[in-house]
Amino acid sequence: MHGPGDVRVEERPEPTIEKPTDAIIRLAASCICGSDLWSYRGIEQQNGPTPMGHEYAGVVEAIGSAVTSLSVGDFVVGSFFASDNTCSICRSGYQTSCHHREPAAAGGAQAERMRVPLADGTLVATPAMPEAAMIPHLLAASDVLGTGWFGAVAADVRPGGTVAVVGDGAVGLLGVLAARELGAERIIAMSRHAARQELALEFGATHIVTERGDAGVEAIRKLTGGDGADSVIEAVGTHESMWQAIHATKPGGHMGYVGVPHGVSLDGVELFFSHTRIHGGPAPVRRFLPELIERIWSGRIAPGRVFDLEVPLADAAEGYRAMDERRAIKTLLTLS
Amino acid sequence: MHGPGDVRVEERPEPTIEKPTDAIIRLAASCICGSDLWSYRGIEQQNGPTPMGHEYAGVVEAIGSAVTSLSVGDFVVGSFFASDNTCSICRSGYQTSCHHREPAAAGGAQAERMRVPLADGTLVATPAMPEAAMIPHLLAASDVLGTGWFGAVAADVRPGGTVAVVGDGAVGLLGVLAARELGAERIIAMSRHAARQELALEFGATHIVTERGDAGVEAIRKLTGGDGADSVIEAVGTHESMWQAIHATKPGGHMGYVGVPHGVSLDGVELFFSHTRIHGGPAPVRRFLPELIERIWSGRIAPGRVFDLEVPLADAAEGYRAMDERRAIKTLLTLS
Repeated sequence: MHGPGDVRVEERPEPTIEKPTDAIIRLAASCICGSDLWSYRGIEQQNGPTPMGHEYAGVVEAIGSAVTSLSVGDFVVGSFFASDNTCSICRSGYQTSCHHREPAAAGGAQAERMRVPLADGTLVATPAMPEAAMIPHLLAASDVLGTGWFGAVAADVRPGGTVAVVGDGAVGLLGVLAARELGAERIIAMSRHAARQELALEFGATHIVTERGDAGVEAIRKLTGGDGADSVIEAVGTHESMWQAIHATKPGGHMGYVGVPHGVSLDGVELFFSHTRIHGGPAPVRRFLPELIERIWSGRIAPGRVFDLEVPLADAAEGYRAMDERRAIKTLLTLS
Repeated sequence: MHGPGDVRVEERPEPTIEKPTDAIIRLAASCICGSDLWSYRGIEQQNGPTPMGHEYAGVVEAIGSAVTSLSVGDFVVGSFFASDNTCSICRSGYQTSCHHREPAAAGGAQAERMRVPLADGTLVATPAMPEAAMIPHLLAASDVLGTGWFGAVAADVRPGGTVAVVGDGAVGLLGVLAARELGAERIIAMSRHAARQELALEFGATHIVTERGDAGVEAIRKLTGGDGADSVIEAVGTHESMWQAIHATKPGGHMGYVGVPHGVSLDGVELFFSHTRIHGGPAPVRRFLPELIERIWSGRIAPGRVFDLEVPLADAAEGYRAMDERRAIKTLLTLS
């Protein structure tokens, strides 16, 4: 990305093994994330041209001399932050706060090949080489599924509970799917967009609320006997969406926020009297990858349904435009 | 309180039963709360002269016609918010967000008598009439012990865990005691005040940290192998203390905040990347009262040790001065 709205596909140097813990992978497909739009829209500043993309799944082409758990030819999925998966923070399940955390795709994952640091701690191999139809689902596990899943876990979704989801992007929709998988009884998706409502219902939403802001909060309260939802997943990251999520939560309930915050400021008194438990942050996708891959492999979940546009990597600019204009939920970039 | 620094003891009308769910109690003792200092110092604005005090324990003198669980002559302890203790929010343990919540001591509890609304849902009777020596402990249960306890519960204190406590006022010190009772293995009290350090150690602190702010956070990290504490209790309520608490928490750990926030604003991005779980609010003391009274009654805990100054109610102004100047941790107001 050369600047806001300026996406170009260019030849770049081939990635190489730089450290003995690195791996090089050939991507099976790539994609564009809702969070890439922050810089596309100029809301997040960039310092010159920046390689984009942080979601990936593909085949290991080379490994450094210290990599022990992977072999060339393995099909792998990884998280957007590389982690050693052995430090005390990783062992407690917060690999995205690993003591040795670094970006997993510093060279960009909207590419044919990429270097992944800390390969042993970052990548998870699939049971075998997947069929082509499974690639989008595995790619979704790399971020949007893992992030929606963390949103549901951070919101303490439990069997029988009532969950509201703020945000109808890929992460919010997969938060709906995660809530269903974790046993929620009522799942309220907040969306005013027909195609997204439809996918939310397919993923397990039991109710759709089209109102936003205070009216949205009021609608959630009405559906929950005045209490608010036990669990609310926030998957946008704006000041308004955060407060909408907090106020839609039952006192003592949990709000899990996974939208990267932009311009969010939480007033202490208001938060205090809300009695909301809040937890969020960059999703420790690595924690969830083994079980997510298993659910995908068995055909139980189909998170790749969030990809409603496919373009060749060479047409990445059109993929960004479609998401920016909300013509697409999420764009898959195909590689030949 | 007639204005900042202007506390007067005056004759006021006797409280009477106004609603059938009310009770009138004769206080066995009263006290001054750290939160009363916000208005004493002019940080919180008051609209004209205001009856003060919200902590109470004493004998029921009269009950309304709808009160069924209490009798005249019972010794009771209650919370600063009255609650019905039957609504869905109360049943989930958040009585201070009760659908019918109201201040329990609208007429002030720094007084000889007071009216308590929703008596059945608000007051808890002791097993028998307590001896004089037990009064300060029971009075502490009404707020500072219950609030410190909630801080520990909100910070998810568990057997074997490491806990840090920000704030060495009565609530912070009783947060230390709560952490010990809940089985914490290491309890780090943050205090630079000799008498308070001593009481913290008596209540179960295993470490004292005298540094504040970034240096305090650094000290906690050093004591925890770089991770931060599993649980941090915030018992001050300033912007600085909130961030000190958040940054002293291990990623994925819990920060429980019970200091009423003043000038606190939490930046979304910083909170997001801290990975801290935060929970707090007005402590639902009613939830904990039965077990707190039991622990006091059996002699297991002595929370009234936080009272290090006793003055007659008539000298309340001196009680405020002593706390304002940090000559006293907490002032007991004796009644004749």
